[in-house]
Amino acid sequence: MYIIDTIQDIQDMARGAVLLGTGGGGDPYVGELFVGEQIKRGRFPKVISCDEVADDAFVVSIAGIGAPTVIVEHLVSEKTLLKLLAHAEAFYGRRVDAIISAEIGGANSVFPLALSAISGIPVIDADGVGRAVPQLEMTTFSIYGVKATPCILMDDSDNIVTIDAVTDRMAEDLARVVTGAMGAMAFGAIYPMSGKQVRTVAVHRSLTMALEIGRCIREAREGTDDVFGKLIDYLNSWDNRVARILFDGKITDVKHETRDSWLGDSTDICTVEIRNEFSIARVNGRPVTMVPDLITILDRESGEPLTGEMLSYGQRVKVMGYSADPMLRQPESLDVLGPRMFGLDEDYVSIEDLTSPGPTPSSPAMLRMAG
Amino acid sequence: MYIIDTIQDIQDMARGAVLLGTGGGGDPYVGELFVGEQIKRGRFPKVISCDEVADDAFVVSIAGIGAPTVIVEHLVSEKTLLKLLAHAEAFYGRRVDAIISAEIGGANSVFPLALSAISGIPVIDADGVGRAVPQLEMTTFSIYGVKATPCILMDDSDNIVTIDAVTDRMAEDLARVVTGAMGAMAFGAIYPMSGKQVRTVAVHRSLTMALEIGRCIREAREGTDDVFGKLIDYLNSWDNRVARILFDGKITDVKHETRDSWLGDSTDICTVEIRNEFSIARVNGRPVTMVPDLITILDRESGEPLTGEMLSYGQRVKVMGYSADPMLRQPESLDVLGPRMFGLDEDYVSIEDLTSPGPTPSSPAMLRMAG
Repeated sequence: MYIIDTIQDIQDMARGAVLLGTGGGGDPYVGELFVGEQIKRGRFPKVISCDEVADDAFVVSIAGIGAPTVIVEHLVSEKTLLKLLAHAEAFYGRRVDAIISAEIGGANSVFPLALSAISGIPVIDADGVGRAVPQLEMTTFSIYGVKATPCILMDDSDNIVTIDAVTDRMAEDLARVVTGAMGAMAFGAIYPMSGKQVRTVAVHRSLTMALEIGRCIREAREGTDDVFGKLIDYLNSWDNRVARILFDGKITDVKHETRDSWLGDSTDICTVEIRNEFSIARVNGRPVTMVPDLITILDRESGEPLTGEMLSYGQRVKVMGYSADPMLRQPESLDVLGPRMFGLDEDYVSIEDLTSPGPTPSSPAMLRMAG
Repeated sequence: MYIIDTIQDIQDMARGAVLLGTGGGGDPYVGELFVGEQIKRGRFPKVISCDEVADDAFVVSIAGIGAPTVIVEHLVSEKTLLKLLAHAEAFYGRRVDAIISAEIGGANSVFPLALSAISGIPVIDADGVGRAVPQLEMTTFSIYGVKATPCILMDDSDNIVTIDAVTDRMAEDLARVVTGAMGAMAFGAIYPMSGKQVRTVAVHRSLTMALEIGRCIREAREGTDDVFGKLIDYLNSWDNRVARILFDGKITDVKHETRDSWLGDSTDICTVEIRNEFSIARVNGRPVTMVPDLITILDRESGEPLTGEMLSYGQRVKVMGYSADPMLRQPESLDVLGPRMFGLDEDYVSIEDLTSPGPTPSSPAMLRMAG
């Protein structure tokens, strides 16, 4: 168990969550501010490891559901979070013993920490995917046998909807339209499960990974070390996972309507497709990383990870790929969150098979986003 | 208490419900067939009056929610209705003592009778509006203080959503999108209330009215009486209510996109606007009946009431207006289901003030629908 007791910790956590958000998942900034305020008041989020959860503990995911652009601007309200907890406990008929993130990437990394700070309920150091995903059912929870429903959605006006869907795909459809009617943003208590289930269906230690990624980038930057060298070393220190810089360049275009390939004639070109998250990176038309492996775009100087919304013409960036948690690479996982589920016409090939640790293609002016 | 024990009764009921559906509400035909099958098997719907309901009886509305075109084609399943009842009883935590229609117009007149036939639970001879309306919150239940939620929606695949909305208008928004995600048709248990509440918030004896309207038309037709004369006499026999033939003509156009006025130069013209239900009838541009008063279009020869979907070029019809139940004409009701809530730029004027019992304008070829 550890507590997040400094503003720097929550800032680091949020920075790492943006990297793991692979361009999507919503910016955790507003949630980070909220948790920072709690820390100033001496209310610290508690983090426990999967091994510290009792087998019969009752665990739910607390998640913001909705449009990333709305999540960024949506104030986190202590009242709403506590009401959601109270309604969830009434609905499920028992006390919530621990909270877990459905996805560690983006804003949903911080909402459980926010509720932990104000309720005292610990957050488990794990999540349902180890990155961000565009749909509710794209989690290891769902893939390995825990249902998203019955779940409860609530908005700031106290409208409450509960969903008990036959499939998690249907739960996603229902949650999406309900959230739309609630003004594009709702908070949900989803994926009720036992502590025992958490241990088998969750991606472990992902909250710590987010925290340590953010800390690594900050410390390297402060120490004027090679930020990317340190970051790659840190990411490679995880078992069976490989990080590589895929490209170094300047953003020349952010398009939202086309998926045509677009190639220059004299320099290397990297295109990254966005479908909520970055789904595939290609260099000179050849795939170099694809979902569920992680693609992240970082500021070339500071190493700051960038969300899709932050990208604009002229930014100097590096594109990085990182192998997904091994749970996401199993055939049953690829059926749910492989490239074809993101609308791509490709079968999954791992970053290890698509790239070698050789020199990074680079070009002064040829990165292009298509989403 | 009476039972509906002949096929003729349920056919008469459905015919009357189409008239009270004022062009909308969904065709009750499929539900009528289902109830007819039950009657053949000796399972009769029971109808009790408002006075026969105990004060502390637990009453819910059982309703089909969705697109009228889907409701018409949607088979009524005994399994689905009984599951809805079981889930509703589990959700509300008590046995349902009686069922009530949310709206007597259209398909929602027959679903409660269908459930009554298979469950033995009586249907109350009353409803929430005495006609059909396009939105969940447009009921006397809601207007006079009974909330639509908490309610439960279910589809044929056992997906279940419960809604607890702050306002019935929000309940409508949520139910609409959920129904869409369920494939445009769901069954709902809504408007939970006590028997005591039913007596103050419901439009009384409306189920009997539907049955007697249908019977009146059939008997007049069989006896080669003047169908319209008999029908008007029957409708006028209700206290404070007046029915008038507004127009006699042939349908020359059914438009779905325009609300422009359209006038001929030499003959009388009637236009009727459709917004799920018929919302306003005008003769030569002058309003003659508007919501919440009832507008219905009937076959000129047989007196058969027609839904909006049944109308087509060349049909010879009569347009009839009928004053709404007095509960619907109160200021608080007009705020919710007056002409402006149907998108019209008019303040409500009653059919009595808009028309006189004089001769009916008629023309061989000039009725036009705009919706």
